[in-house]
Amino acid sequence: RINSDRLWDMLMEMAKIGPGIAGGNNRQTLTDADGEGRHLFKRWCEAEGMTVATDKMGTMFATCAGTDPDALPVYVGSHLDTQPTGGKYDGVLGVLAGLEVIRSMNDLGVKTKHPIVVTNWANEEGARFAPAMLASGVFAGVHSLDYAYGRKDPDGKTYGDELKRIGWLGDEEVGARKMHAYFEYHIEQGPILEAEDRQIGVVTHCQGLWWLEFTLTGREAHTGSTPMDMRVNAGLAFGRILEMVQTVAMAEQPGAVAGVGQAFFSPNSRNVLPGKVVFTVDMRTPSQEKLDRMRAAIEKGAAEICETLGVGCSVEAVGHFDPVTFDPTLVGRVRAAAEKLGYSHMDIISGAGHDACWAAKVAPATMIMCPCVGGLSHNEAEEISKDWAAAGCDVLLHAVLETAEI
Amino acid sequence: RINSDRLWDMLMEMAKIGPGIAGGNNRQTLTDADGEGRHLFKRWCEAEGMTVATDKMGTMFATCAGTDPDALPVYVGSHLDTQPTGGKYDGVLGVLAGLEVIRSMNDLGVKTKHPIVVTNWANEEGARFAPAMLASGVFAGVHSLDYAYGRKDPDGKTYGDELKRIGWLGDEEVGARKMHAYFEYHIEQGPILEAEDRQIGVVTHCQGLWWLEFTLTGREAHTGSTPMDMRVNAGLAFGRILEMVQTVAMAEQPGAVAGVGQAFFSPNSRNVLPGKVVFTVDMRTPSQEKLDRMRAAIEKGAAEICETLGVGCSVEAVGHFDPVTFDPTLVGRVRAAAEKLGYSHMDIISGAGHDACWAAKVAPATMIMCPCVGGLSHNEAEEISKDWAAAGCDVLLHAVLETAEI
Ligand SMILES: NC(=O)NCCC(=O)O
Ligand SMILES: NC(=O)NCCC(=O)O
Repeated sequence: RINSDRLWDMLMEMAKIGPGIAGGNNRQTLTDADGEGRHLFKRWCEAEGMTVATDKMGTMFATCAGTDPDALPVYVGSHLDTQPTGGKYDGVLGVLAGLEVIRSMNDLGVKTKHPIVVTNWANEEGARFAPAMLASGVFAGVHSLDYAYGRKDPDGKTYGDELKRIGWLGDEEVGARKMHAYFEYHIEQGPILEAEDRQIGVVTHCQGLWWLEFTLTGREAHTGSTPMDMRVNAGLAFGRILEMVQTVAMAEQPGAVAGVGQAFFSPNSRNVLPGKVVFTVDMRTPSQEKLDRMRAAIEKGAAEICETLGVGCSVEAVGHFDPVTFDPTLVGRVRAAAEKLGYSHMDIISGAGHDACWAAKVAPATMIMCPCVGGLSHNEAEEISKDWAAAGCDVLLHAVLETAEI
Repeated sequence: RINSDRLWDMLMEMAKIGPGIAGGNNRQTLTDADGEGRHLFKRWCEAEGMTVATDKMGTMFATCAGTDPDALPVYVGSHLDTQPTGGKYDGVLGVLAGLEVIRSMNDLGVKTKHPIVVTNWANEEGARFAPAMLASGVFAGVHSLDYAYGRKDPDGKTYGDELKRIGWLGDEEVGARKMHAYFEYHIEQGPILEAEDRQIGVVTHCQGLWWLEFTLTGREAHTGSTPMDMRVNAGLAFGRILEMVQTVAMAEQPGAVAGVGQAFFSPNSRNVLPGKVVFTVDMRTPSQEKLDRMRAAIEKGAAEICETLGVGCSVEAVGHFDPVTFDPTLVGRVRAAAEKLGYSHMDIISGAGHDACWAAKVAPATMIMCPCVGGLSHNEAEEISKDWAAAGCDVLLHAVLETAEI
């Protein structure tokens, strides 16, 4: 079993970097706080005798050497970046649990045949730079490096420039590494494990996603002196689209979600009808058929609403992955480890996207989940218990050791 | 008649300060560009022998002395501040037309009994600092100076601090002046004069307004892993309120408008259901009864929508004025001047709010309007013709000379 106090202490220490305003964290991708978090992680890894490499996307790979120089490494990873008002565990748990696996092995003097590489993927959250899981996507060949470098934050700063600015542009080619297997341990971010009173989620699938960024073009005009019938009101179109998105998601229940988290009115003045409203619809479901149908329904619904109001409507897909099925052998190992360790468990579908979804494209991959209080995540109030954190890390240790071969 | 080329040249010269991105202006209240515009206006006034005073709200009063030392001044004013994506004429026309009246009098060597004071009211637009017509509101005793100084822009900067920063904090007590009469010349900002093919709008009334700032409180949560039935979705509530506001306004047709120009999602991340949505509803109508009814309906409607969704809802009134009736004697003088000069004219109700609305509380006041192309304002594409600008300025000259007594 791993050292639960040590794991918890690392979590609390990391949470001091980029503190939020309500007990959580704001350590967004390629901010100074992200850089600081990376340095701390690097110091901790090097103290365990690991060597740390960084690729051209800024992803960090900390290697614990194996006994067989020809064996491909087993990867254990997640992310240290957070939402602007994020929790202390989302992503961080998976990275630091990977490090705790190495620490536990070092305590016991255990060596594996395959090297073990603890990975901090860059820009998993996609909050500052869309899409989410950007670096693992480049790693898996889904995005080009140029595409990734050109992604812009709301202030217009690019990923490439910011990566250089914080000093974490590595020289390793992205995706050059071959993986024997990939494990990711993460908090559930949903309500199921807690409701079902299980310590471990054995993640079999991940639901697919579309992020559609809509740009509605109305006509800027005075809110007071422009008669109702002369308005080209992009704000009203936005209102109707919000309701339509809800209706589309409800029609696909159970097992589908859709909503809008980000919206910008322009010029955003109280007495100017918006000339432009830009917003992103996030829709997800584990069913490929539903995912295709929802995307089509939402695009069609938005186009119809806008046409009725004379509002211009353009759409850009700024994030996408199809539903993922994880590797049955690795899934079986996670389930067996939970069983052996006496932890209550259940199979579960990930509601959130994870770097494991892209890693699954290039290697056998799977995930382990622990509950979180009230299913709450992407909220500074996100909470887990030390015991929950430890149980999943124990399962990770056993599944990894079996895969990396002692 | 005034010098139409000179008036137009002044308008074009002022428009060079704080240029917009699409041919208009961004010379928002208490920005550096606002300061620069003020200096130019001051230089022009002083070149005409006027003396310029500034009050503690930053309102500028340029006085052309009268022949009777005991006569109260006739005020002619409007504003030089603009929307973030504003036009070149909204407000600016009224101030510079006032100055052109003085220039024309100086050309002719005409002196009036009453002094004439050309006024640049501070923060008319209310774009950076709500409410609109802030300085004239303090002048009329509607707001306290403390209230005004504490108003914040979206970055949290206060009116008081920014007024000091740009160096336009005057020492004159606000509202200390007594007015013999107040005239304001403004573009219509609506479609009526152009549609009816009239050169002059004789403004008899101004519609009343409420600005209600709503704060909706949802629960920040993951857009992917939070099931539809566990969401406390402030974004969805906002969507429904947008539609409800439209419905309330449509039920009061004709003669009422309502809409939303400003909205902020928080934390505004694509994969976080908004924990907070803050937005302002702008509603207006010339009927006191309708205004009261619309406000009540919108507050009630929003509360009901939020209750159904479990979303918190609080409301703050950040702007208000009741419908205004302008002074019949001054209105008659404007109408007679248009008639005498041979300009086509019609009586009109102002759709927008103006400093004249507050001035009307403390003095006989009225307004003159000229058409604008397509009724478009609060848009950088706002346009008027040189002839339209000049016709209203001629009417202003005659109405002012009659009131100030040659
Ligand atoms: N796990 C997680 O929150 N990832 C961010 C990408 C997503 O929105 O699912
Ligand atoms: N005239 C004008 O646009 N004033 C701004 C205040 C308002 O919204 O009516």
